[in-house]
Amino acid sequence: MKAKIISLLKSHSPGYISGEEISSILGISRTAVWKHIQKLRDNGYQIESHSRIGYRLVQAPDKLYQHELNEYMKSKIIGRKIVYREVVDSTNKVAKEMAQKGAEEGTVIIAEEQTAGKGRLGRLWFSPAGQGLWFSIILRSQISPADAPKMTLVAAVAVARTLREIGIPVGIKWPNDILIRERKLAGILTEMNAEIDKVNYLIVGIGINISLNGDVLPDEIASVATSMEEYAEGGISRIRVLASILNNFDSLYQEFTTGGFSNILDSWKDMSVTLNRRVKIHALGKIDEGLAFDIDEDGALILKKDDGTIKRVLSGEVSLRT
Amino acid sequence: MKAKIISLLKSHSPGYISGEEISSILGISRTAVWKHIQKLRDNGYQIESHSRIGYRLVQAPDKLYQHELNEYMKSKIIGRKIVYREVVDSTNKVAKEMAQKGAEEGTVIIAEEQTAGKGRLGRLWFSPAGQGLWFSIILRSQISPADAPKMTLVAAVAVARTLREIGIPVGIKWPNDILIRERKLAGILTEMNAEIDKVNYLIVGIGINISLNGDVLPDEIASVATSMEEYAEGGISRIRVLASILNNFDSLYQEFTTGGFSNILDSWKDMSVTLNRRVKIHALGKIDEGLAFDIDEDGALILKKDDGTIKRVLSGEVSLRT
Repeated sequence: MKAKIISLLKSHSPGYISGEEISSILGISRTAVWKHIQKLRDNGYQIESHSRIGYRLVQAPDKLYQHELNEYMKSKIIGRKIVYREVVDSTNKVAKEMAQKGAEEGTVIIAEEQTAGKGRLGRLWFSPAGQGLWFSIILRSQISPADAPKMTLVAAVAVARTLREIGIPVGIKWPNDILIRERKLAGILTEMNAEIDKVNYLIVGIGINISLNGDVLPDEIASVATSMEEYAEGGISRIRVLASILNNFDSLYQEFTTGGFSNILDSWKDMSVTLNRRVKIHALGKIDEGLAFDIDEDGALILKKDDGTIKRVLSGEVSLRT
Repeated sequence: MKAKIISLLKSHSPGYISGEEISSILGISRTAVWKHIQKLRDNGYQIESHSRIGYRLVQAPDKLYQHELNEYMKSKIIGRKIVYREVVDSTNKVAKEMAQKGAEEGTVIIAEEQTAGKGRLGRLWFSPAGQGLWFSIILRSQISPADAPKMTLVAAVAVARTLREIGIPVGIKWPNDILIRERKLAGILTEMNAEIDKVNYLIVGIGINISLNGDVLPDEIASVATSMEEYAEGGISRIRVLASILNNFDSLYQEFTTGGFSNILDSWKDMSVTLNRRVKIHALGKIDEGLAFDIDEDGALILKKDDGTIKRVLSGEVSLRT
C-alpha cells in the first residue's frame, strides 16, 4: 500500500492529488490514507497537504527503501527479496545469518550504515550513513569451492560495468578492487560457507563510496580512496546506481550459471588495470614480483616473474608498480 | 575436584578408600566428599559406600566425560579445550556456532548423541546415544580454501592410523571414508567458512560407528555400514579410541602446519583402497569412469579415463568398481 501511495503521489508531482482520489483508487478509507501519509512522513517523505486540494510530494528522502528500488529493478534472481536496514554491524554478517537460516538465493541486504563494515582480510570498511552503497547478496550456486574466486570476478564486472555506463572511468584491480586513477572507489568481499565438495552459500558484499570524502576518513585510507561524486557531474542517485548494479549482476550471474564465464572473463580483462603491469603480490606471508601476464579460466592471475618463471596466483594482495 | 575424587577412587579400585582419607588428601570436609560422591553417582558412576570402610568405585559409566578423556590425552593443540554434551542436533553445527563466536583452535565438541547428525552432501548421519563417536574439531589454520581438501586427508589418516593401531583393518576411500571390506565404518565431514583468499575456520566432523548394528539402521544404510565391534575382540573403549584419534590428529596437524603434508599423503596412499582400482565418480552432476591412478600433492584424485585421457578430480562421490 505504501508503494502504491508513493507511486500516486509521484505521478501527480509536482501537483496535488486529493485524499478522496487516493481513497477511491486504492479502495481504502480517507482516514487510512491520512495514516499512511503520516507514516511516509515519518520515513522522511516531505508531503504537503491542503484541506481542499489534497497531498503533494515535495521530496522523497535519500533512502534505499525497497519500494523505491523496485521502480528501477528488472532482475530475475538478484534482489527478488530485499532486506533494508537503517543500521547494521555488517551487511555480510547479516547475510550470513540469514543464509544460515535458509534465506533464498538472490536475497539482498542493504543498509544505510554499517557500524562494523568489513573489507578483505579482516580490515575495516568505513561505511557512514547515506554516503555510499553497502550491500550483500546471498548466492546458492551449485559450484565447488575451487570455483568461488570466479564469482568475485563476476561481481567486479557487474560493478565496473555499471559505473562505466554512467560515465565513471573505473578499472578493476585483480581480483576485485574497483579503482579510479589507482584510488579505491569500491571493494568486494566474497565469503563462503562450504563443504570440501560444494559451496553451501556465497555472500558477495559490495561497498561503494558515493559521497564519502577524505575529511571523514582516517588518513591512511583517505590517501588511497576516492568517491563517485568526485567524478560525476550533477550528483549521483544512490538508488539508481544500486538498482543498476543489481540488474547487471543478475544478467551476469545467469550468464555465469549457464556456463558463460569466458565472456565475463573477457569483460573483466577489458576493464582490468592489472594486466600487463608490473605487480608485487603478497599472499599468505610470501611476496612475489613480476609482470601480471594473464588471468586464466579459473580466475587465477598468471605472474611472469623476473627470472622468466611463470607462477599461478589464486589469491593475494596486489600492489601495482610503476 | 570431581576429577581428583575419581582419580583417588580409581587408584584404590577394586578396594575402598575412606571418606576421611579423601577429605584429608583433598583438603575438603567429609560432607563435601559425600556431596561430590552423590554427584558422581548422578553422572552414572557406580560407587559403593560402607560407613566404616569408605567408598569403592564399582564401575565408571560409558561416557565421554572430559575428566575421563584427559587421562589419555597427550595432545598440544587438538582437544586443549573439550566441550561435552549429552545430546546435540549436530556437533558440526555446534562447532560452527562456537567458531563464529571465536572458540579457540583445537576446541573439540563431543556428544553422546546427535539428533540431526550430518554426512557429506547434506545426508543424514545416524548417531544414537553411546553407540559411536560423534565429534567435531575447530581448526584455524592459515590456509587458502584451495588447500582445505588436504585437511580432510589429514583427518582420514588420523582416524585410519588409530584404528589400525588397535587392530581394526580399515582402508581409506578417497577422499575421506573409512571402510572395512568396502563397508563404511567412519565418515568425515569437513566444512569451512572462508573468504576467497583465506579460511577463517575449518570444522572437521568425525563419526565412527562403535557398536551400532544393522538392526537399528535404515536398510539402505545397514547394507553398506559396519561397526568396530564386529572386528574387535574384547570390546572397545570409546574413550580410549577417541583420545587416541585426537592424539594422532594432533601430531599430524602439527606436521601439516609445518609443511609436512607429503609424508601424510604417503600414509594416506599406504592405507588407500581407491588407488589402482576402477572407479566411477559422480561430481556436480557429471559422471566419470576410469582407473584411480594417483593422488596429487593437492589431494586431488588423478583419474585415467578409458580413452587414455587424464582428469584431475577435486571432489566427488566415488564408487569402487569390481
